[in-house]
Amino acid sequence: MTPQDRVHDAYARLARGERPEAWITLRAEEDVLADAAALEQRLAAGELLPLAGSLLAVKDNIDVAGLPTTAACPEYAYLPERSAPAVRRLVDAGALVLGKTNLDQFATGLVGTRSPYGAVRDVRDPARVSGGSSSGSAVVVALGIADLALGTDTAGSGRVPAAYQGVVGVKPTRGLVPTDGVVPACRSFDCVTVFARTLGDARQAMSIMSEPAGRPWPADAPLAAPPAPVVAVPDRDELVGMSGPWLDAFEQAAQALVKAGARLRPIRLAPFLAAAKLLYGGGFVAERYAAVGAFLDGHPATADPTVAGIITAARDVPAHVLVADTERLERLREQAMAEWGDADALLLPTAPVHPTIAQVAADPVGVNALVGTYTNFCNLFDLAAVAVPAGEVEGGHFGVQVIARGFADAVAADVAALILDEPAPAPPTGGLPLLVIGAHLTGQPLNVQLTSAGGRCAAQVRTAAEYRLYALPTQPAKPGLVRVGSGGGSIDGEVWLLPPAALGRLLAALPEPMTLGKVRLADGSLVTGFLCESAATEDAPDITEHGGWRSYLAS
Amino acid sequence: MTPQDRVHDAYARLARGERPEAWITLRAEEDVLADAAALEQRLAAGELLPLAGSLLAVKDNIDVAGLPTTAACPEYAYLPERSAPAVRRLVDAGALVLGKTNLDQFATGLVGTRSPYGAVRDVRDPARVSGGSSSGSAVVVALGIADLALGTDTAGSGRVPAAYQGVVGVKPTRGLVPTDGVVPACRSFDCVTVFARTLGDARQAMSIMSEPAGRPWPADAPLAAPPAPVVAVPDRDELVGMSGPWLDAFEQAAQALVKAGARLRPIRLAPFLAAAKLLYGGGFVAERYAAVGAFLDGHPATADPTVAGIITAARDVPAHVLVADTERLERLREQAMAEWGDADALLLPTAPVHPTIAQVAADPVGVNALVGTYTNFCNLFDLAAVAVPAGEVEGGHFGVQVIARGFADAVAADVAALILDEPAPAPPTGGLPLLVIGAHLTGQPLNVQLTSAGGRCAAQVRTAAEYRLYALPTQPAKPGLVRVGSGGGSIDGEVWLLPPAALGRLLAALPEPMTLGKVRLADGSLVTGFLCESAATEDAPDITEHGGWRSYLAS
Repeated sequence: MTPQDRVHDAYARLARGERPEAWITLRAEEDVLADAAALEQRLAAGELLPLAGSLLAVKDNIDVAGLPTTAACPEYAYLPERSAPAVRRLVDAGALVLGKTNLDQFATGLVGTRSPYGAVRDVRDPARVSGGSSSGSAVVVALGIADLALGTDTAGSGRVPAAYQGVVGVKPTRGLVPTDGVVPACRSFDCVTVFARTLGDARQAMSIMSEPAGRPWPADAPLAAPPAPVVAVPDRDELVGMSGPWLDAFEQAAQALVKAGARLRPIRLAPFLAAAKLLYGGGFVAERYAAVGAFLDGHPATADPTVAGIITAARDVPAHVLVADTERLERLREQAMAEWGDADALLLPTAPVHPTIAQVAADPVGVNALVGTYTNFCNLFDLAAVAVPAGEVEGGHFGVQVIARGFADAVAADVAALILDEPAPAPPTGGLPLLVIGAHLTGQPLNVQLTSAGGRCAAQVRTAAEYRLYALPTQPAKPGLVRVGSGGGSIDGEVWLLPPAALGRLLAALPEPMTLGKVRLADGSLVTGFLCESAATEDAPDITEHGGWRSYLAS
Repeated sequence: MTPQDRVHDAYARLARGERPEAWITLRAEEDVLADAAALEQRLAAGELLPLAGSLLAVKDNIDVAGLPTTAACPEYAYLPERSAPAVRRLVDAGALVLGKTNLDQFATGLVGTRSPYGAVRDVRDPARVSGGSSSGSAVVVALGIADLALGTDTAGSGRVPAAYQGVVGVKPTRGLVPTDGVVPACRSFDCVTVFARTLGDARQAMSIMSEPAGRPWPADAPLAAPPAPVVAVPDRDELVGMSGPWLDAFEQAAQALVKAGARLRPIRLAPFLAAAKLLYGGGFVAERYAAVGAFLDGHPATADPTVAGIITAARDVPAHVLVADTERLERLREQAMAEWGDADALLLPTAPVHPTIAQVAADPVGVNALVGTYTNFCNLFDLAAVAVPAGEVEGGHFGVQVIARGFADAVAADVAALILDEPAPAPPTGGLPLLVIGAHLTGQPLNVQLTSAGGRCAAQVRTAAEYRLYALPTQPAKPGLVRVGSGGGSIDGEVWLLPPAALGRLLAALPEPMTLGKVRLADGSLVTGFLCESAATEDAPDITEHGGWRSYLAS
């Protein structure tokens, strides 16, 4: 399908009028078609556009040049001249913006009902909430209208609606995606998120949005989860606010991880849940007042009453209370990370219930707080998360989130892929390639040196026919690769990507007679890889004829 | 001199009664002698104690087990059971605590006069202030009583008194030295600092205190300044608050850098100076109220009136003002770092004047603010700094500070060493060793790959006599080292230390036929170093007889 065809299809679907409250501003079809035509010209000119023709919806607290930004408050609206960097990067990569989506006003809420543009209804059960605050974005992806939708997440706004709408929501490490051009909610903790129907699509979009960002990737950020990740999973009695069937659904998700090879480990949630309460219960709400409080003071009749009540109550919070809460949060984080220990990831429910619109109306603050039980702490603790669907319970929708340390976004995504049983190809990253041909191959004894350092296997390859392979008398047994030019053979190997610091440390720990240098592959390219000192091969058996270490071991 | 001899000497010096107001708690000589005797036993038992017998003074807002912590407020005093980690690490390394030193109360001030234990006088001119808040610590080091003294620095408290007392003050990157056991001043920005008479002593102490800390070193933190560092230096008209002779003294310090090989570059200070005003002029003072405000509210007659005035005024600052200031600070930091550009360091005066005690008494807040003009922004921007003496001006004392990016503490210290014209041996760091034998040697064309990545030359070495060296036909010309076992020669080289990520990136960029592996040195040890593929040496001249690449080039 051409980009223009995809636009036609989306507008045909839109014409059915499902959940129209999901949109605040929908662009005219001809405008999007014009963009699609321009895109087709770029493609025809040979441009490489990884998102060519992907249809994008943008939460209406994120700027898109030429469309009003309302933050779900009509009187607050302004017309931005520039798109937020997050939007710009996706559009530069070929995405086509359909319009701006509804949200809990000023991104304050997890339900999707706090909007003068209408309470956004669940896609499958119109009596239930869509989840929020990125309500419209999750809904239009679930309906199949948009392929990608941007949300924001401070307390869970990029994850709760993903759970309820049965789509994937990726909440990156804070700062990886710039928040310029985003109406702040609680700006220390705001993140731009993405929704998609597959984890692979979400990862690709996130990878495009996160480079190059204000907060740089550390040189040892992992590129992948290890093959048998340790996942911390709370026992049933740790999971407050969940009834039996919801607890069963959570255990099923945990069992899917076990089936996929993960090792589960119990964890106590007390410091996590205590921190969650700080987000609305203490000084941090003052960030919301700092963002839009002056506006609300000047327009008292404008706002959603629940939202206005939360934000204007923060006007008089003293700064020393915010300081004390910041210190309290640091202590809780230390306790939480002590609980976390050496786990690669933490599995939690995304939300403990899926309320109806009536339930929310009856107790807007209480139900909202319950919904955020397991999402609120994440940004406070500077963690990354991926929310994935996990089935239907009692007519409501359940999801789980895989949480990883800050900058371990790839670990969260890889573990989430195990739950979905979906191949989720890793996007290009800052890893450095390393060809391994022996004891570091997948399944071989030293492979753990790569996986424990956050390495990712990128390709199966063969060297050019310029090498000889020797069985070295090392412990463990290793092959030694030596370039001979003519008279050589071609040897099997794997190319891994490693964080730069991990490659440096691997080299520093490398024993003689192994060396690392450039190895020519069968396709003519050069890659950093294992070689060995020629002097060490003098008395070693030549095993070139086997074509690789695994074949030799099998012989 | 034995540790006990050193203690005797210090107490003999103390008996002269110079600047007794520098101390709040001085330990009994026999207690310190008992510690020294115990230390001598540890040494006799063969323990390696890098600070054995160093005499240590501790600012009285840092806990030392068994001595009261007063923060220069007698009614606030408490008796800690445990020493702060910073103290513990120095004592574990052999330092002997003499006592606790005077300070501007609650570390709020840069003058040294705000204390009920007495205004601390300058060592050389008793009519002038010592500088503060770490007044007593700088004074007892300048008097030659203590070898090392701990201070703290939020607005410049670890640097201003160093300037006035003519000693070295090292203010590390925030978080490298734990602030546990320190009475908070403005806890987001507080740092533990060290004073010493030589930069080498200060670096050694800082290195011992900073491992292992809560805030980990990034894998690409530089280990050294490059050989001809680019130093940003403001023009005279940027330097507010300084008279002609002080400006001349600053220019002399800059010229000392030029003489030592640095390249100077102008810089505009506007965003730096604007941020400096945020520390006391906005929401951040609320951190001081959060720390001790409740105490001061309950003990209104207790405090120094200037200090109490500053802190209690922060009681009613709204949290949204602190939030807005935090955002303003981020914007100013972006502007400042844009000014900074690719400079390795920034040279600034430590203080623009050296006031008398009478001048401070006449205008305690105004003079204090003037003194902090060039120090206040540093911690707000997450930078590292080293303050060094820079001569006498009009009877006052002048100093300059070398400021480097966060985690570039080694760069600040190396550039400061150029001003002092003092060898300042680098302490052990997290660097990974790399033997270079050719184009990466000091002065050779590829050496810049090591220096620009933060590498540090650690040793001149020779390999074991097991290698042959070839002149490879590469561009630039390089030697190829090949291990042959018997029949080999010994080759000259340098061992460099590199940040782990830099070593990984160097390997990734390494062209064929160069390889990196383990090389045996003349002392029998193995080190990661340059080798080359044997196939590449077949037609290359054997230059082993020259004993090294430089000798070959010279021949």
